[in-house]
Amino acid sequence: MKIYDISMSISENMQVYKNKEEKKPVFSVTRDFKTGNSFETNIKMDMHTGTHIDAPLHMIRDGATIDKVRLDKFISKCKVLDFTNVEDCITKSNLEKKCIEENEFLLLKTRNSFKDCFDYNFVYLEKEAAQYLKEKKVKGVGIDALGIERNQKGHPTHKILLSSGIIIIEGLRLKNIEEGKYIIIALPLKFVGVEASPVRAILIKDM
Amino acid sequence: MKIYDISMSISENMQVYKNKEEKKPVFSVTRDFKTGNSFETNIKMDMHTGTHIDAPLHMIRDGATIDKVRLDKFISKCKVLDFTNVEDCITKSNLEKKCIEENEFLLLKTRNSFKDCFDYNFVYLEKEAAQYLKEKKVKGVGIDALGIERNQKGHPTHKILLSSGIIIIEGLRLKNIEEGKYIIIALPLKFVGVEASPVRAILIKDM
Repeated sequence: MKIYDISMSISENMQVYKNKEEKKPVFSVTRDFKTGNSFETNIKMDMHTGTHIDAPLHMIRDGATIDKVRLDKFISKCKVLDFTNVEDCITKSNLEKKCIEENEFLLLKTRNSFKDCFDYNFVYLEKEAAQYLKEKKVKGVGIDALGIERNQKGHPTHKILLSSGIIIIEGLRLKNIEEGKYIIIALPLKFVGVEASPVRAILIKDM
Repeated sequence: MKIYDISMSISENMQVYKNKEEKKPVFSVTRDFKTGNSFETNIKMDMHTGTHIDAPLHMIRDGATIDKVRLDKFISKCKVLDFTNVEDCITKSNLEKKCIEENEFLLLKTRNSFKDCFDYNFVYLEKEAAQYLKEKKVKGVGIDALGIERNQKGHPTHKILLSSGIIIIEGLRLKNIEEGKYIIIALPLKFVGVEASPVRAILIKDM
């Protein structure tokens, strides 16, 4: 069994969406070996920190919260698609050139995976491409940017996917991953009543 | 494939260690559909909130941090052992009655799994029992209390396990799990430089 870690490291100097100060995680050491005999830390973080899953509530009023999404959505056969040559956004036409099967989790590898700082012009999934994936009945869509869309009024890509029960993972790191088939495991923490969760996302080959 | 969720829900009224106020997670909604067109939350939480993994640094000066532990520790064959009849602590003698194999992840099911409030007299793993598991070369040990030990001066159970590279999971929920063999998946978030992480822990049967 070969395990590939496709998660962002979570630290105070990591990239955050639009470099907003309030989105940076803050760690506090509450005990260490100078003051006691153990080491303990707490964290303040946004639910959309690093590699994370969006549940429907993120963009859909009264949508499902992260604790209500079935766990088998997060352990799935999966396909990584290489779009590293795409400049601006992934379109329906880009997707039509790939073999996409029903009930598959798709991960979109782009030039975003090669950037460690937030890129205001990150490659995203265009709304008609999202509609195409809805029609293909995929199980989930992951991308290697902190957002799955930008500059689309009303967030149509999010809404098309989330209203169809299609899970979104943002903030993947796919630089070292080749196009092909894998098993993905990306389980959210069991936060009650919220719209998202950071995850440790991995791919497995030859399970 | 049958998936069993063995994680605690994370909410503001969950049980925390010794009911300490500062250990309770705090959620803040930073945007909702009254003030914007999306829902966003952040959280302040202790790394030992709910179901979580302790890395060596928790009790060992200069011990490995959670991001340095190999990922194959967290995806493993695993055995649930039923100790629901134990009153005070799990001893070497209790363990000797069970079949324990090298490189196995052991989960200790006790009466703790049936309590939703913090129990100051929770069942724990006694230090000689920890030494026995070290000699058996298990991969990891999980328990259904927020601590793997109590009232043992110097935290010997933690130290014996963590100094041997044996992973500890605390805060499991095993009420509905029968003794037997499973696959466990319990991946920590990729926090850099800290001693622990909350996890979503699951068991899989018939993968």
